[in-house]
Amino acid sequence: MPERITLYTAKICPYAQRAELALEEAKAKYTKYQIDLQNKPEWYAPKVNPASKVPAIAYGGPAVQPDQPSSESVKLAESLVLVEFVADLFPDSPLLPADPVKRAQARFFIEVVSSKLVSSWNNALRTGTPEAVQAFLGGVEAVQSLLPAQGYAVGEFSIADISVAPFLARAYVALENDIGAYEQGEGAKILEALQQPRFARFQTYWAELQARPSFQATFDKEYVTEAFKKRFSSLRVKQ
Amino acid sequence: MPERITLYTAKICPYAQRAELALEEAKAKYTKYQIDLQNKPEWYAPKVNPASKVPAIAYGGPAVQPDQPSSESVKLAESLVLVEFVADLFPDSPLLPADPVKRAQARFFIEVVSSKLVSSWNNALRTGTPEAVQAFLGGVEAVQSLLPAQGYAVGEFSIADISVAPFLARAYVALENDIGAYEQGEGAKILEALQQPRFARFQTYWAELQARPSFQATFDKEYVTEAFKKRFSSLRVKQ
Repeated sequence: MPERITLYTAKICPYAQRAELALEEAKAKYTKYQIDLQNKPEWYAPKVNPASKVPAIAYGGPAVQPDQPSSESVKLAESLVLVEFVADLFPDSPLLPADPVKRAQARFFIEVVSSKLVSSWNNALRTGTPEAVQAFLGGVEAVQSLLPAQGYAVGEFSIADISVAPFLARAYVALENDIGAYEQGEGAKILEALQQPRFARFQTYWAELQARPSFQATFDKEYVTEAFKKRFSSLRVKQ
Repeated sequence: MPERITLYTAKICPYAQRAELALEEAKAKYTKYQIDLQNKPEWYAPKVNPASKVPAIAYGGPAVQPDQPSSESVKLAESLVLVEFVADLFPDSPLLPADPVKRAQARFFIEVVSSKLVSSWNNALRTGTPEAVQAFLGGVEAVQSLLPAQGYAVGEFSIADISVAPFLARAYVALENDIGAYEQGEGAKILEALQQPRFARFQTYWAELQARPSFQATFDKEYVTEAFKKRFSSLRVKQ
């Protein structure tokens, strides 16, 4: 029986949404505490995560207020570590398939998401060069190439899908609002490129990710849109 | 009961040694096939790993010669994916602790190895700048800071130790032979720095890693030394 779980998270952060998705899929009982990343509480780094990032989990220990963490709970960090942790705590959840081969394929998918999609998206957003934009489209194609003919990344829903959904969600928010270092109007062009037949399989996959109840419960599009406008609208000006 | 396992590996490669260590620790029955990374066989990319890297595993399928891989086996790649795969295939092996918290701590250790030690060592070797050398020492310190008072990374031996040992082994080979882009004689100085009291806990840990039978069975120091001399001796000249 899992012990007490407190998740430190932030709505804007794709890494944090991974942990939320895992907890939702596992139907875990947990306390959620929002950290303002632009104005972090003083106790957060010393008492929860020395790296001062979200997500982090305080596991076990006595019942305390999230903003008064107990030294008796174990503190864990890093989104993919937390996702695997939740899968270990709730082995009957849909997070990981039982078959070792499928588990390996899920983890390989995550590796491709990290090395080809997350990094290229960050580059496209922050540098906006035509090369970076092309690399992002290449990253989407690399992810698409791993998808089976239908269904989720390895057939049934798994941590593989959790690894990618939060990043796609934020990329779409940025592109739909033309937020990024790329040239004005480029957001719409990238969205158009993603509508081409070349990305047909990706599009059905992305639609299924968005329809997932755990995704809807953990993604506040309105909030993220406003937060992105505040945080990233200066990117183009800085060029 | 696990199916047939063929490991494609290369003695020089630290990533490949991770997979070998996992298979040895699991006492798996497997076939090992050396890939010459400087002269890869033509069939390797199309039939085993499209990324053309080691390690890779062919799992299942009929009995075939490793250089004639069957299309009926599943091909898996990426060192950390393979290490987890072996842990899943052999749940009674010492690869992962049973406790979810300890498993999370092992995976967090691996994350720190990847982000702070592997990358900084590659930089120190290939650029040799004083900053890169300091970053490598900082990476060793970051790894050391996670170690318990005694024993392996999370107490008992685990995949955490497997993630780091092959990189330390090759760093020592390079430093002991003054191989790298850093200034001549710098190798000895870095080794000396690692002998300082500041790294005392790291040194006992590194000694225990080297004493592990699986490490001795999978690390051919003489071979790696000769291969490093051939492959990396031009690094300093290129500066």
